[in-house]
Amino acid sequence: MHNRHIRITGTGKYLPKKVVTAQEMDLLLGVPAGWVEKKTNVLRRHFVEDESASQMGAFAAVEALKQANLDFLDIDCLVCASGTMEQPIPSTASLIQRALGQEKSGVPCFDINATCLSFLTALDVMSYMVTSGRYHRILLVSTEIASIGLNWSNKESAALFGDGAAAVVIEASSEQEGSRILSSAMKTYSQGAHLSQIRGGGTRMPALSTKEEAAFLFEMDGPEIYKMASRLLPSFVALLLQEAGCAMKDIQVVIPHQGSAMAMRLIRRKLRISEEQLMFITPTHGNTIAASIPMGLHEAIREGRITRGSRLMLLGTSAGLSIGGMILDY
Amino acid sequence: MHNRHIRITGTGKYLPKKVVTAQEMDLLLGVPAGWVEKKTNVLRRHFVEDESASQMGAFAAVEALKQANLDFLDIDCLVCASGTMEQPIPSTASLIQRALGQEKSGVPCFDINATCLSFLTALDVMSYMVTSGRYHRILLVSTEIASIGLNWSNKESAALFGDGAAAVVIEASSEQEGSRILSSAMKTYSQGAHLSQIRGGGTRMPALSTKEEAAFLFEMDGPEIYKMASRLLPSFVALLLQEAGCAMKDIQVVIPHQGSAMAMRLIRRKLRISEEQLMFITPTHGNTIAASIPMGLHEAIREGRITRGSRLMLLGTSAGLSIGGMILDY
Repeated sequence: MHNRHIRITGTGKYLPKKVVTAQEMDLLLGVPAGWVEKKTNVLRRHFVEDESASQMGAFAAVEALKQANLDFLDIDCLVCASGTMEQPIPSTASLIQRALGQEKSGVPCFDINATCLSFLTALDVMSYMVTSGRYHRILLVSTEIASIGLNWSNKESAALFGDGAAAVVIEASSEQEGSRILSSAMKTYSQGAHLSQIRGGGTRMPALSTKEEAAFLFEMDGPEIYKMASRLLPSFVALLLQEAGCAMKDIQVVIPHQGSAMAMRLIRRKLRISEEQLMFITPTHGNTIAASIPMGLHEAIREGRITRGSRLMLLGTSAGLSIGGMILDY
Repeated sequence: MHNRHIRITGTGKYLPKKVVTAQEMDLLLGVPAGWVEKKTNVLRRHFVEDESASQMGAFAAVEALKQANLDFLDIDCLVCASGTMEQPIPSTASLIQRALGQEKSGVPCFDINATCLSFLTALDVMSYMVTSGRYHRILLVSTEIASIGLNWSNKESAALFGDGAAAVVIEASSEQEGSRILSSAMKTYSQGAHLSQIRGGGTRMPALSTKEEAAFLFEMDGPEIYKMASRLLPSFVALLLQEAGCAMKDIQVVIPHQGSAMAMRLIRRKLRISEEQLMFITPTHGNTIAASIPMGLHEAIREGRITRGSRLMLLGTSAGLSIGGMILDY
């Protein structure tokens, strides 16, 4: 019903230079040796040292453009799809355009934000602008710096996250090519809005007048999110498959938002996804917020797990609380 | 070429209870009586007292839904199109869903941010989801609290802004109805990214570790923005008109982003827009960031300056620096 003939023609990834291992994280958190690995499965993640979000995004974009065999000026629109921003004004997309040295290009830039689902949402929304012919080629960039907002007193959450960026180029495809989106959906249940949040730094608790340090740090009620996701995911995914006219066994690779190893186990069990189907990059990347799905996509292509014609499912939950999913033929 | 058959079926507006007159602003800024009115033409603006952005957005949304004769559950998607956010996580759209008491609805919520052009960008982008049939009815909400980020030492800029929210419902229209978007465009030139910015509070200058108070306040180089806009607007608008197949004289009402009275004079002179054509709500609202265009639309409809079939131009510049415009038949 909502088939859209688009094609992912390039992907790119950038991880900041500094690696933080599970062992180093044990020390940082003041927990027994082995705790971080056992609790989170994150063996290493990258944290920024001197990189900015726009620079990381530009590095990932350059790789995606190269893979797509395009110059920046072939791009009609640049969307930054991140849960974090580089600065409140202007949009991070504008700053990525500048970091790419394309400040006179005129290429339209704006941000789409659905926290961890930003990439999936932007891919979904922008695909309609591609198939309509409004924009021929769109560059989607997710670039995230989680490390500056970690709450070190909430050890299980702090141990999960990593920084980095990923970029994807989409173009229209012909009916013959077969690359297409078969179905996509998003649902938001704000009864879970408080389950993952950063309260401070917006207009409700302004940065200048908010004294409470914890307000600026990420808060997560893992067990409650787990409960909501367990309840909502099965019927959500069933509908996604039904709309695409296929079953889970027809999906070659499922690329979930790498929320946590626990979340990965949940979706495997609840949705009957085999180990072979699941793209699991949490151990080497951590949770990189909205960048985690396009990073998984990039890695799956690089590793040869996805080739032209492969059927994929992108899936995740985010603050909101939202659930998002998409089935596509690569 | 890019005609889209969509129809604006409802608009709503909310202004916070507290009114700040030009006279009061003179006192706040410590300038001679009459200075604010002379410099900005803003006779009064509204500042929040106890209202949150999501509450204001919800009030405006209720009015728009009522005008469209819809319940919230008739809506398929809620997009918050604002330059400011209520809190960094989750999206302001999710918080508006909650403020509407619709936290179990599942209606998808996310944010689109192009600073002052957020509404125009969201209307443009989301129109393709409507015409494709993906979403039948979309609620766009712009809700802005500028008053907490004003730099009182930059008097000319501080005197310009106001708080408030506006909401718009869009639906598909039939070919017979005539309501449609004739053309739309956006251009971003990040060589002007530094001309209007808030540097602090994102990942580059985190709220917790940034000591410089001014970093959290709005900075604007008015004269340079004026220069860039003067240079870029005429050819941009010429193309917009060309694509729509009409001339400026065919436009009944031009609704610009109410950046400043100076910006209004600029576009009137440069683009040869008559006083009768121009929707000018700066004197009673100030610059309400992304809410200013949908507020102008709401007021133009309320005052009877727009009726079904009227041809409109929405137009503005934003941080980025971006220019955006749209020609539509109401």
